[in-house]
Amino acid sequence: MQIRIGIMGYGNLGRGIECAIKQNPDLELVAVFTRRNPESVHILTENVKVYPAEDAVKMKNDIDVLILCGGSATDLPEQTKEYAKYFNVVDSFDTHAKIPEHFENVNETASTNGNIAIISAGWDPGMFSLNRLYANAVLPQGEDYTFWGKGVSQGHSDAIRRIEGVLDAKQYTIPIESALAEVRSGSNPKLATREKHLRECFVVAKEGADLARIENEIKTMPNYFADYDTIVHFITEEELKRDHSGIPHGGFVIRSGKTGWNLENNHIIEYNIKLDSNPEFTASVIAACARAAFRMRSEGMTGCKTIFDIAPAYLSPLSGEELRKTML
Amino acid sequence: MQIRIGIMGYGNLGRGIECAIKQNPDLELVAVFTRRNPESVHILTENVKVYPAEDAVKMKNDIDVLILCGGSATDLPEQTKEYAKYFNVVDSFDTHAKIPEHFENVNETASTNGNIAIISAGWDPGMFSLNRLYANAVLPQGEDYTFWGKGVSQGHSDAIRRIEGVLDAKQYTIPIESALAEVRSGSNPKLATREKHLRECFVVAKEGADLARIENEIKTMPNYFADYDTIVHFITEEELKRDHSGIPHGGFVIRSGKTGWNLENNHIIEYNIKLDSNPEFTASVIAACARAAFRMRSEGMTGCKTIFDIAPAYLSPLSGEELRKTML
Repeated sequence: MQIRIGIMGYGNLGRGIECAIKQNPDLELVAVFTRRNPESVHILTENVKVYPAEDAVKMKNDIDVLILCGGSATDLPEQTKEYAKYFNVVDSFDTHAKIPEHFENVNETASTNGNIAIISAGWDPGMFSLNRLYANAVLPQGEDYTFWGKGVSQGHSDAIRRIEGVLDAKQYTIPIESALAEVRSGSNPKLATREKHLRECFVVAKEGADLARIENEIKTMPNYFADYDTIVHFITEEELKRDHSGIPHGGFVIRSGKTGWNLENNHIIEYNIKLDSNPEFTASVIAACARAAFRMRSEGMTGCKTIFDIAPAYLSPLSGEELRKTML
Repeated sequence: MQIRIGIMGYGNLGRGIECAIKQNPDLELVAVFTRRNPESVHILTENVKVYPAEDAVKMKNDIDVLILCGGSATDLPEQTKEYAKYFNVVDSFDTHAKIPEHFENVNETASTNGNIAIISAGWDPGMFSLNRLYANAVLPQGEDYTFWGKGVSQGHSDAIRRIEGVLDAKQYTIPIESALAEVRSGSNPKLATREKHLRECFVVAKEGADLARIENEIKTMPNYFADYDTIVHFITEEELKRDHSGIPHGGFVIRSGKTGWNLENNHIIEYNIKLDSNPEFTASVIAACARAAFRMRSEGMTGCKTIFDIAPAYLSPLSGEELRKTML
C-alpha cells in the first residue's frame, strides 16, 4: 500500500515535491491543489488532476498526508493550522523567530482533530537544526557556527530588484573560506557578520540608469547589505539568464567542543550540504517527513511535531531490521 | 532530580563516560564497577566508590542507567543481555556484522524485564549510521561513501606489535584527499580499497632487528595492510611516546545524490568529525544516549533500541519548547 500524498500549491517547492514522490516508490501523488485556475497549471505526473484549493477538504478520505507548499509570511500561518483539522500535514515554515507560535497554533488543531502535523521541514530549519541538536547533545561545552551558501538568496535578490533603475538581479550569499578554516581549527573565534559571509550581486540595469547610484544603494542598504562586504556586477539580461538561472544553495553547521576532565581535548563536528536545487532538496526532506507523519499517525501519535520529535527510522522506507543490517 | 549513572568497566571508555557526566549537570555518577580489584582502580570523581562487578545487581534500585564499557568481541555479547534484565543499559557494541544478532538477544531480556537497552552508541556505529540513514531518506537515489581517519586504529597497531622484532607501534588510517575531492565533486566514483585510505605506521623495533623484514611483513599482511598503500617509519621509543600517545580519530560520511524529474540536479551531503580523543567522543555520545534511555523508559517504552529509534529531542537536556526556540 502506498502513502497517498496531496500537494497544496504548485510553485518551485510543489514541483520539487512531485519530483521527490517519483523517487520514493512508497509514496503516491493523488492530487495537486492550486489557488490559480486549475486549467492553467500543468503538472508532470500523468493521470493526476489539479483541483481548486477549496476542493481539498472534500478529498480528505483520499489523502493520507497533505503537503503545504505556501510561503511562510502569510500562507502557512493560516493554512497549516486550518488543514491540520482534516489532514496529516507537513509544511516548511521557515520564519525561525515565529516557530514557537506557529507550533502552538498548529498543535491545537492537530491534537484536537487527531492528526499529525510536521512543521518546519527542510534544511534550515530542518537538517541544520537536527545537526545543531545532535552536536550540542554530544558536546555540551562548545560553540555553534552556521554558514550559508554558496547560494541564491531570494529575499536579497528581491531587495535589489526594488531599487530604481534595476530590471532584474540575483544575489549569492557566500561563506568566507578563511572564517570556515578558523572555525575548523578549533580556535572558537568570535566572528562579526562581515567576517562570515560575502554578498555577490549580478544586476541588470535599465538602459541609461545611473550604475554608480545603484551600486551605492545596494551596498548601503540597511539589514540586507550594509553589514557585509558586497560585490556588485552589472551584466546583461542574456548573461543573467544564461549564467544565473539556477537555484543552488548550501551551507555548513559546525560545532567545536571540548571533552576531558579538564576540557583538554578538542572535537569538531561538521555537517555541510551543496545543493544544485534548493527547492528540490527541501522537497526531498519534506517527502521523507510525509512518510514519517503517516507512520507516526498509524501508531496512534497526534499533534504538532518537528524534526526533533521524529525517531530517524520513521523517515526511511526500510524496516528496522533492514536499517540495522545495512546502515548501522 | 538527576539521572543516576553506573559505569561497568573502567578503561579508556569508562573514564571518558566519567568525564562526560561531569559536563552534563543532569547526570550523576553513582558507582563504578570493575572486574579488577576495586582498590586498584582510582577514579577521578570525589565521593564515588568503585565496586566489584558482581555487586552491580544489588545496587539496581540506586542506578537509573548502567553504561557497559566492555569490548565487543567477548564482553558485550554476554553483558548487555544479562544486565538488561536489571537495568536500563547503554553499550557501544561495534561489530557491525553482528549487530542484528546482538539486537535480538538484548531485545528479549530488555523487553521481558521492562527495561530500555540502547546498543551500538558511539560514532560508527552511531553518529555515522545516523547520517547514512538521514541522507538516504532524503536522497533515495545516490551513493554512500564513508572514510575513516585521520586516526589511530587499535586493531592495526596491535597487528604490527605481534610481528617478531617489534617493541611497540601505532598505525594511522588516513583518508586520501584526492578521493574525498572526487566524491565531493558529485562524480560518484567507484573507489577501490587502496584508493580510499592510506596506512601510516610508526614502529619501534628491538635493537638489531631486521628492519627490512619487519617493513615487508607489515606491508604484505593480508586483510590488515596488503590491500593498502602503507608507509612505515621506524622511530625510537621516546619519539613514539612523545609524538604518538594520543588517540585521535575522525572520518567522513558523504552521500552524493540526485533529484529532479530527470535526475538533473546533484546534491552532496557531508558529515565529518575530527576528534582529539576517540574514546571521549564515543563516551559523549553514550552519555546523551543514557539520558534518552532514562526518558524513554519514563514514558513507558521498553526493549532494545538503537540511535535510529531515538527521537532526537530525547538526547538533549533542553525541553521541546527550548529546543524549538533556540535550535530549530
